[in-house]
This record gives sequence, C-alpha cells and structure tokens, in this order.
Amino acid sequence: MKAYAKQDFPVSDVRRFLEPGPIVLVSSAWRGKTNIMTMGWHMIMGFQPSLVGCYIWSENFSFDLVRRSRQCVINVPTTDLGATVVDIGNSSGRHIDKFAKFSLTAQAGSEVDAPLIAECFANFECRLVDSSLIRRYSLFVLEVVKAHVARAPRYPRTIHYHGDGVFMLSGPNTSKWRKRFNPHML
Amino acid sequence: MKAYAKQDFPVSDVRRFLEPGPIVLVSSAWRGKTNIMTMGWHMIMGFQPSLVGCYIWSENFSFDLVRRSRQCVINVPTTDLGATVVDIGNSSGRHIDKFAKFSLTAQAGSEVDAPLIAECFANFECRLVDSSLIRRYSLFVLEVVKAHVARAPRYPRTIHYHGDGVFMLSGPNTSKWRKRFNPHML
Repeated sequence: MKAYAKQDFPVSDVRRFLEPGPIVLVSSAWRGKTNIMTMGWHMIMGFQPSLVGCYIWSENFSFDLVRRSRQCVINVPTTDLGATVVDIGNSSGRHIDKFAKFSLTAQAGSEVDAPLIAECFANFECRLVDSSLIRRYSLFVLEVVKAHVARAPRYPRTIHYHGDGVFMLSGPNTSKWRKRFNPHML
Repeated sequence: MKAYAKQDFPVSDVRRFLEPGPIVLVSSAWRGKTNIMTMGWHMIMGFQPSLVGCYIWSENFSFDLVRRSRQCVINVPTTDLGATVVDIGNSSGRHIDKFAKFSLTAQAGSEVDAPLIAECFANFECRLVDSSLIRRYSLFVLEVVKAHVARAPRYPRTIHYHGDGVFMLSGPNTSKWRKRFNPHML
C-alpha cells in the first residue's frame, strides 16, 4: 500500500469525491484511543459550510469516539484497499489498534486531533457541528474544515457497496453531457 | 427509451441500488401538478423501516409538491438516460410538464399517488415520515413503502455525479471480497 502525496483542496468541493457514493473510512480519536470504521451511509448536505451527513451505528466503537471528541476524519480509499476496507468493517476497535493491525499510517491533521490515513486518496478533517440527530437517526452532521487530496489522478477509482458482499468499482468518467448544463446548475 | 418490465422487490433491500450513490429522479404530484427532479444528495438511513434521507432544495418546484403531498417516487435511471437526467435538472416544472417534455411515461403506483417513471430501472414509492428536518437542512426523511425493480440485469449501469458537469458511470461489480465478510456484516 502506498501513501499518497497530497495537497490542500477546497472544502466546498469535496462533493467530487463523496457525491458518487464511495465507501469511506472514518478515523477518530478520544483519550488515547483511535479507531477506524468502514462507512457506506453518508451524503453531502451543503457546500458552504461544507456539510456531510453520516450514519454511525451506536454499537460501533467509533460512535462514542466521534460523539465525545466531536471530530473525525473521512478518508476515501481506492480499489487497491478493498480487502482492507472489508477487514476493517469486520473488526471492532474495542480490542485492537486498527492502524497497527492493518498496517495503515496515522498522520496528524491540522484542524482536528483525529488521525488521517496516509494510504487513502483523500482525507477530510471534520467537526461534529450538530449532534441533535444522533439519538433518533444515528445521524452525525459533520462540517469538513480541511481537505487533503492526492495530486493525481483527478478522479480516483473508488469502491461502492451494493450489500450482500458485492461491490461496484467506479467506472469511466465522462463530461459528454457537460455542454447541456445551464452554468449555474453545474 | 425503453420501459422496463418490473417485479416487486423487498423494500428493505433497496440499498442495492441506492447505496452506491447514483443520481436519481424524484417524481411527485400535488393537486393536479406533477414534476420530476434530478437528485444527487441522498443516503440510506435504515433497513426496517426502509428509510432514505433526501436533500431537496426549497427553491425546487418539487420541494412543495413532496412536502404537501408527503409522498414521492425515487426512480433510478440508467446510463442511457444521461442526457435526459441533465435536461430534467436544468429545467423547472413550474412552467412545463416534464413527463410530456421529456417523453417519459407516468405509471400509477400502488401505495402513493405520485407517478412512477416507466423508463427508469427501479421505482421506489415513498412516504414522507419526518418533515421536522426540512426547514433546517432541506432533509426529507422518506420511507420506501413499495419497490418495483426491473427483472434484469441484477445490477444496472447507473450515473454518479462528481460536480462540474462530470459524471462517473458505474463500473464492474465484484464479489471477490465477499468471503472475507463475517456473515452478519454483509
């Protein structure tokens, strides 16, 4: 697994990576414990501020880490990490250090204490800005406060989940319909 | 454009089509007016009941139709409908009948009054079960109460949006990591 060289990226543009619906890895830290979870249920909820809604089940070890620290990092893995993504989803951080177990590199962020995963294509540092929907819907409303994205390629090959152990790998990108857009609808 | 022959599908399994993050078409009806909108911001929020969170901007004509009727249909288009998906997103139903304008066939649902789009691969009839997050987040919490899905293929070729006029078309599906799953994590 390689660590991607990254550059700063506008937080209002993280839709490029999250809107197509990839499986992501959420990293968190609280009182000396860190964790990584695999997450498939998330959506963009705004550009400015850059909001992402995320479903984190209360039984996940990450639930308390994110809720108490009010921070996390959303990391976007590429297809080469597929097996690791599944293994992370299969295990609980209650008893193991997932960074060590899965040979992933924790990097310090600039805005949050939660660690970035160096081997992921993109890392979005997030703050929990609304915890009022956690009890009812396990819904964490996060604001992306800092984004780090690999310099290339422009569009990574991402992993998308169908359920039942079946994944869709992202296919070709096209701008063939771009000229049909009204500019303000892009 | 062809109309797909469909069969009933378990509402708790609509993740197969929505979780990978496709662009969808939302159809609605209220007091003799119908509309279709293109929607990219949505997420699965539960299996039983089958909940989907959807962001519908208050400036969209569909906003009032869905809010007042408390119903809509989420339709999943395939890549052959790409140009139509963009054209629908570019236009407002305030002044045109989008079914007529885009030569789409409105079909009656069984649980809601909003029309299904026959040319879409899947149609999910939805009820608005929580409107309390609309004002703050434009977030409609919908319950899928009836699902109609084309008999084949098992996984359709869907359209995913990166922003800036660029779409990702769904790529190959794989179950190569399936054996790594703990059965209860599938």
